[in-house]
Amino acid sequence: MTQQRGRGRPRDPEVDRAILQAALELFIERGMEGMSIEQVAKLAGVGKVTVYRRWASKEELAAHAIEWMVESRRDWPSNAEVERSEPEHLLENTLDESAELAASHEFRALVARILGSSVSHPALMATYWKHYILPRREAATAMLDQARQAGRLPPDTDLDVLIDMMAGAVIYRVLQPDPPDRAEMRRYLRQLYRQIGLLPDN
Amino acid sequence: MTQQRGRGRPRDPEVDRAILQAALELFIERGMEGMSIEQVAKLAGVGKVTVYRRWASKEELAAHAIEWMVESRRDWPSNAEVERSEPEHLLENTLDESAELAASHEFRALVARILGSSVSHPALMATYWKHYILPRREAATAMLDQARQAGRLPPDTDLDVLIDMMAGAVIYRVLQPDPPDRAEMRRYLRQLYRQIGLLPDN
Repeated sequence: MTQQRGRGRPRDPEVDRAILQAALELFIERGMEGMSIEQVAKLAGVGKVTVYRRWASKEELAAHAIEWMVESRRDWPSNAEVERSEPEHLLENTLDESAELAASHEFRALVARILGSSVSHPALMATYWKHYILPRREAATAMLDQARQAGRLPPDTDLDVLIDMMAGAVIYRVLQPDPPDRAEMRRYLRQLYRQIGLLPDN
Repeated sequence: MTQQRGRGRPRDPEVDRAILQAALELFIERGMEGMSIEQVAKLAGVGKVTVYRRWASKEELAAHAIEWMVESRRDWPSNAEVERSEPEHLLENTLDESAELAASHEFRALVARILGSSVSHPALMATYWKHYILPRREAATAMLDQARQAGRLPPDTDLDVLIDMMAGAVIYRVLQPDPPDRAEMRRYLRQLYRQIGLLPDN
């Protein structure tokens, strides 16, 4: 977990866990519009106040619950690791975990719900973006900038557009009919990184 | 409109229009899970049977309503036009319309709803994919294959991955916080096409 949104009280990690798990389940089942702090508290077996003491809004709770799942499923490299690694090795080393996460039903369901609420209920995307996506984009930008300086990417590459192309392709692919299994996702990611120029051919 | 899903009856285009408009509004407002044929009929001022006579399911109706909006907003080149045009000219000629469509609130709302329902309610994506997205992907594949043969794309480019990168980037970009306006979308698309190698630099 990269962020704790508590209000300066001693925290019981078991309670946190129960609330995050309940929030995750309800968000996947009902989306942002269909879930409430009250339902989360009930499912977690705690009082509403116990939830509000930890998270100020259901958007913050949902964003934290999503991140809690995503973090638990793979090791994200730190910015320091990104800076001292070759982009090629970094991508090779994380390929299996990335493929497994992207091909999981839970990831697909979360992506659908996050994107699905982005226009009707923009506060979730805004919160998740600011606290969790932006730091990850900064790490990706550092990696891609290294590749650009090493001549693997054209000098005038717009890195924001490139990150959208990479993340967007994965997001779009996993929501298409006939979603990929882990092996297909592995092949897909490798091909994607190759086409961008980050992995060598064959 | 590329498809008519009627059952061999004389059709009143005004009734079709009213039903499609009502379906579009309800789909954007409530998503697939929150809309019903009954509500569409009521909003359109027709009987349920009138709707069912034209569309066998709410997924077919929603898919047709989405396409009806998308088609009305820009001229999509025919496969024959794609085959006889230079990819560069085709992209230049459609840039303004593409940017206007992608930056519109209605498009963003539709994309969010379609993706948002893709895991919880996969029948809509399956229907929309088969009837409307696949034919468009075939046209895009023909265009990209031409570019590949002309040496603008590397010979081992996986065109399905490339299409996902292009469409995925746009889909992802328009659902991020601070969505682009038309001018920014125009710049974005141009940069995207350039980075792929379909438009010349500068």
